[in-house]
Amino acid sequence: MKTIEVCLSPDLMHLYEVQDKTVVVVDILRATSCMVTAFAHGVDCIMPFADLESCRGMNKQGYTTSGERNGEKVEGFDKGNSPFEYMEEIRGKKVAFTTTNGTQAIGKSIGAMDVVIGAFLNLTAVSKYLVDGTNNVLVVCAGWKGKVNLEDTLFAGALVAKVQEHIGTDCDAAITARHLYDIAKGDMAGFLKQASHIKRLNRLGIHEDIVFCLTEDKYDVVPRLRDGILCC
Amino acid sequence: MKTIEVCLSPDLMHLYEVQDKTVVVVDILRATSCMVTAFAHGVDCIMPFADLESCRGMNKQGYTTSGERNGEKVEGFDKGNSPFEYMEEIRGKKVAFTTTNGTQAIGKSIGAMDVVIGAFLNLTAVSKYLVDGTNNVLVVCAGWKGKVNLEDTLFAGALVAKVQEHIGTDCDAAITARHLYDIAKGDMAGFLKQASHIKRLNRLGIHEDIVFCLTEDKYDVVPRLRDGILCC
Repeated sequence: MKTIEVCLSPDLMHLYEVQDKTVVVVDILRATSCMVTAFAHGVDCIMPFADLESCRGMNKQGYTTSGERNGEKVEGFDKGNSPFEYMEEIRGKKVAFTTTNGTQAIGKSIGAMDVVIGAFLNLTAVSKYLVDGTNNVLVVCAGWKGKVNLEDTLFAGALVAKVQEHIGTDCDAAITARHLYDIAKGDMAGFLKQASHIKRLNRLGIHEDIVFCLTEDKYDVVPRLRDGILCC
Repeated sequence: MKTIEVCLSPDLMHLYEVQDKTVVVVDILRATSCMVTAFAHGVDCIMPFADLESCRGMNKQGYTTSGERNGEKVEGFDKGNSPFEYMEEIRGKKVAFTTTNGTQAIGKSIGAMDVVIGAFLNLTAVSKYLVDGTNNVLVVCAGWKGKVNLEDTLFAGALVAKVQEHIGTDCDAAITARHLYDIAKGDMAGFLKQASHIKRLNRLGIHEDIVFCLTEDKYDVVPRLRDGILCC
């Protein structure tokens, strides 16, 4: 039986062997939710950047630039980090994307056999991809500046629960995440009112974004990293 | 109101400021449970070591040497890592102690304003110490070779629950730990049968150790680190 493990922070990535694994990168609020939304609306590709200035420079090469730091859109970028920005004027576009946590986690996953983008929005699509595949799985939670967060842990738990008949786990972080999801699944938005990042985002007035990012199975896409670029 | 945070792995310690905090180090199976048991039975002091050879050398200075790696006693050491070894022939002794995870976590906590040793065995005593103190609190889970584990996370959750009327939290890891403890508290030994380290330890035939280490409030001691040495 294949196995699934959960890495609760990108700062723990060094503890896991990834070269023969499929890594699922998750940053529910909001990087990977935006990416899934963009692919569902026909984006051509997304190039993730860890640093702001390299990303900004991509507009000269015809890319749409997306920049977020600390929950806010960066001045001079075309788009920020709300999924609603990735439903329009996105078809056929190439996007250069940098965020506080999500694109950093993607960067740390390079070296894995396969890297895919997960969110509640494509939960079942990702589950099916993992069950159909042959690789063992590592879910990498982007967290908040290295610290563990509730929303990414919840997604990891949802994924572990979803695949558990086909993919086993002997990983305490995966067990923790699955139990947390069991508690929260009836009312995730309510449960997440405790979360530190939710409080941060509520101050920015983006409650609609949060509700949207917690919607399961809105889209049937599985973005994958190929040669450093996300495609579908 | 004071605050309590939880660091789920020593490999995430760099994300937390500790110089003005009380750090509670926890390695339920079994380093901190052994230490608490030793102080309850009159040990004079315990000097923690990260590396095996420095620890071994302390027998020349009249120390009792305690060494554990991967759950097993190290050859040539006086004692291993079972709490039952710290109930006899321990009064008035000085102990040099090295373990796979626990003493490493203590080493990473040096620099904190105050470092104390926590276990289920002294849960209420540690809670009272934290509530009576003036410092903010960071619970550091020793985990297993850097990875998050269930038993230390459960203790962190128990501690957060115990102090919550007096010490607040805005830390997602602390919220996760508290929820996990809420699920498990009715039957911790049963809950922990899922845990990776429990399976590892069961192979070593130490079920009695596990049950003992999950006993709440057997002892009323709070070991503290002073100049690199644990005293009570």
